[in-house]
Amino acid sequence: MYKNFGFSVVDLFEKSRVGILKTPHGKIKTPAFIFCGTKASVKGISPQQLQETKAQIILSNTYHLFSYPGAEHIKKLGGLHKFMGWNGPMLSDSGGFQIFSLGHGAVADEIKGKRSRASTLVKIDEQGAFFRSYWDGNMQLLTPEKSIETQRDLGADLIVSFDECTPYHSDKKYTEQSMERSHRWEKRSLDEFARKNDFTQALYGIVQGGVYQDLRKRSAEFISDKPFFATAIGGTLGSTKTQMYEVVEMATNGLSLSRPIHLLGIGGIVDIFKCVELGIDTFDCVHPTRVARHGGALVKPQHRDNKTREHINLKRSEYATDDNPIEPDCDCSTCKNFSKAYLHYLLKANELLAPSAITVHNVRFMNKLMEEIREGISNKNLEYVKNKWR
Amino acid sequence: MYKNFGFSVVDLFEKSRVGILKTPHGKIKTPAFIFCGTKASVKGISPQQLQETKAQIILSNTYHLFSYPGAEHIKKLGGLHKFMGWNGPMLSDSGGFQIFSLGHGAVADEIKGKRSRASTLVKIDEQGAFFRSYWDGNMQLLTPEKSIETQRDLGADLIVSFDECTPYHSDKKYTEQSMERSHRWEKRSLDEFARKNDFTQALYGIVQGGVYQDLRKRSAEFISDKPFFATAIGGTLGSTKTQMYEVVEMATNGLSLSRPIHLLGIGGIVDIFKCVELGIDTFDCVHPTRVARHGGALVKPQHRDNKTREHINLKRSEYATDDNPIEPDCDCSTCKNFSKAYLHYLLKANELLAPSAITVHNVRFMNKLMEEIREGISNKNLEYVKNKWR
Repeated sequence: MYKNFGFSVVDLFEKSRVGILKTPHGKIKTPAFIFCGTKASVKGISPQQLQETKAQIILSNTYHLFSYPGAEHIKKLGGLHKFMGWNGPMLSDSGGFQIFSLGHGAVADEIKGKRSRASTLVKIDEQGAFFRSYWDGNMQLLTPEKSIETQRDLGADLIVSFDECTPYHSDKKYTEQSMERSHRWEKRSLDEFARKNDFTQALYGIVQGGVYQDLRKRSAEFISDKPFFATAIGGTLGSTKTQMYEVVEMATNGLSLSRPIHLLGIGGIVDIFKCVELGIDTFDCVHPTRVARHGGALVKPQHRDNKTREHINLKRSEYATDDNPIEPDCDCSTCKNFSKAYLHYLLKANELLAPSAITVHNVRFMNKLMEEIREGISNKNLEYVKNKWR
Repeated sequence: MYKNFGFSVVDLFEKSRVGILKTPHGKIKTPAFIFCGTKASVKGISPQQLQETKAQIILSNTYHLFSYPGAEHIKKLGGLHKFMGWNGPMLSDSGGFQIFSLGHGAVADEIKGKRSRASTLVKIDEQGAFFRSYWDGNMQLLTPEKSIETQRDLGADLIVSFDECTPYHSDKKYTEQSMERSHRWEKRSLDEFARKNDFTQALYGIVQGGVYQDLRKRSAEFISDKPFFATAIGGTLGSTKTQMYEVVEMATNGLSLSRPIHLLGIGGIVDIFKCVELGIDTFDCVHPTRVARHGGALVKPQHRDNKTREHINLKRSEYATDDNPIEPDCDCSTCKNFSKAYLHYLLKANELLAPSAITVHNVRFMNKLMEEIREGISNKNLEYVKNKWR
């Protein structure tokens, strides 16, 4: 079913693992970070710059591309890889998360337990999810079949089953009902996938079950029993960091360990270490690229100005005269060519180069972090790597 | 006086010439195009991308940097080259043009004869020009001495004397009086330059005289008699293309041919050919980079969609499904990686990559144009090059 794909664990240290995830567009060394190219572009940088910063894999969002320019349009132009000039591995999500997140602006935060605001713009029934297009306001319907068809047209290597992303405020009863429906949707996703499988794509199942151990266990078993290529951990991860790690732990228990495991939407450094230690292989999050566009440069502990943040805010006036690069030990072109003073100035002067240059650094930072995590696992000195980076 | 600088003509074809302009940051092959890095950045692209597109020289604007972040700030950070990470040749202007242009938004057009609106925000007297800062609205004064001091702090290789840029609507009497004052200002610029010359910079004189042959002749003689390193042609160039070429011709007559000659603010393809044939060595204009940010890609005649424009507008719906690069025969990374359909989509989706990618093409386009013009002069087949490009 997945003959052009593969996953093998090459090094194991307790639950942490180094693996090779094979796709038709190349191999990914895991643990790996997947960069968000939301609307068929990692904002502000080119595929060439992604290669230079050693990015292994990017993702595009079905929700955005479904509304504009449309998956058929991209299919006619040869698929996402050709369309956007990225020849490496790519993942697309199912569209579900954004429908529930952008539809009312609350789920993204609720997933991380930050607040609880009820959804108003979304109607969900057994068929699928109704939502208004962010592009033109038209009502649209996404079903499991439509999501898979859309992702087939987009042509990413790794694609994801359609599910409902239950927010943190959901009670156990709703979470269970939603999980059961997501399982039915995932089964429909799998059926639609298998019906036209041409071996150019591989399908992820998503584990749901909210913060409830028994539900997570049932979901893990359901997904592991079905012939998905890989597993993604979805749904709410609780309201605190501690709860997040507990939920990830309970969600990974019972998963098939022969499959790669993806954690959706997590990109903090501390979180990545914790979750790698729980057996996570891949991560994605808009954080590294989004924070860059707001002037935030990711830095290792010795370069931080604030104990509660993993980045520095280059807009702060203290950087106006700081002649040093973001990180002197970073090999990215931004650190090799630009001082913090220049980046501060570019941000203040609203120059286009600012978001682009800081994004280059943040992408390289994440890739270097993941490189060293892999080395730490292989060399069984992950603790040393951890002390360096978090 | 200019011991680290030099200019030699290596090939001559009628009045067109191929030269080598030597600066402490490298040699420039002329005819050359100078790209506008207005506020210490060529908008949307990095110095690395400038190198990849074979850009030889960029300019920064004294007016903008004088107001923010201030020349002293840049001096403290090691000068413009170090500040912005560009290690190649650089020119700075005197600030004069922008004071008269941005101050009331009319001169830039009037220089090219497009309309005639009186200036209101500027006061000019023998001392210099008073203007309001674009950054904070404060009243500021720029004098010849202050302009040279500012340009010394910025540290560009090639710097420019302070002059008044007379608009097209000026009558002969005003143009003559203004020219005489500009000559006094240029003499003061030269004196201030010589007072602290440390051989890291070379000074341009500017020929004024509007559209009047006798004034242009007097100005050319005045400038040629003074020990400027090079000459720039300033002031209005008339109200039509024909008049522009006439004015450039009269302005170049009588100039010292041992010095490089720069034409300020001209960047059209037809105009460049005409003016190279009149003996111009270097050009600058915001057009190639500005039009890129609005979706305009410079193209050779066979790729145009409109006989009156030297660029195509990638926002036009006809490009939504055009799977070809901007120019199949272009070697820039944008043409190698992206279709017009993708660039059209990026523009419509308001993605940051759009202005950056189109700027890369336009910079490469201009550099390739200038390369082939140099070859055309050396091989005495400029007519062939002209037929290919315009």
